[in-house]
Amino acid sequence: MSDAVAEVTQVVLTFAECWNRHDMNAFAKLFAPDAEFVNVVGLWWKGREEIKKAHEFTHATMFKNSRLTISDVSVRFPVADIAIARARWVLEGHVSPEGSPLPVRHGILLNVLAKTPIGWSIIDSQNTDIIEGALSRPQ
Amino acid sequence: MSDAVAEVTQVVLTFAECWNRHDMNAFAKLFAPDAEFVNVVGLWWKGREEIKKAHEFTHATMFKNSRLTISDVSVRFPVADIAIARARWVLEGHVSPEGSPLPVRHGILLNVLAKTPIGWSIIDSQNTDIIEGALSRPQ
Repeated sequence: MSDAVAEVTQVVLTFAECWNRHDMNAFAKLFAPDAEFVNVVGLWWKGREEIKKAHEFTHATMFKNSRLTISDVSVRFPVADIAIARARWVLEGHVSPEGSPLPVRHGILLNVLAKTPIGWSIIDSQNTDIIEGALSRPQ
Repeated sequence: MSDAVAEVTQVVLTFAECWNRHDMNAFAKLFAPDAEFVNVVGLWWKGREEIKKAHEFTHATMFKNSRLTISDVSVRFPVADIAIARARWVLEGHVSPEGSPLPVRHGILLNVLAKTPIGWSIIDSQNTDIIEGALSRPQ
């Protein structure tokens, strides 16, 4: 594994570590100030502060005791200082808005990262749930 | 609008034009040979040929008479020759695997594009359905 692949992979794994500590200050620092993030239901957050506030809310409620496990991190470099990192994830321990336990969820997270003088920073994320056995959205 | 923004926006709009003509040869040409694509249910296609075959199948079946309308194209350039383009979309006229009409769908499509000597090429796409009124996936 090249140094650059290892560095980018570490950022993606740190995303899950911060999630699992529910440390949204550390989580937010993974993102560039003007980063954007689309979550699994198509909420489109613009800027690190919006990303942080949205995750603070969910980690005080439905994701309070959740655990995110990331695997199969795939990293590509279209140019030297930009990385496209895609990974599979499993989420456990989350609850409904009413507090009921929910089944394990699986998904795919895309992160686009840019190299800065102090390391790789996420500039864009988009997340998609995996719906098993479907070619497109069941309705 | 700068020339580069207009060029990238045109590629994103052409994605919908090819979709609506159900012309998967032209659709596939928007993508780089090693492009990747994650669709709304987390199917992860690797390479232009996989992307083409998957869309040929759905456009012979559930998307045969569907119409995709793209709006709110937002383009950013983390470096000069890479673009991050995000857009909202509406899909109408699609049917279930059994052929029954389905309700209108809304979503958000992310495309990462690279500038080549012959224009901008999509190197990565990830698509997410919008689920109204939810903070995360209802289950």
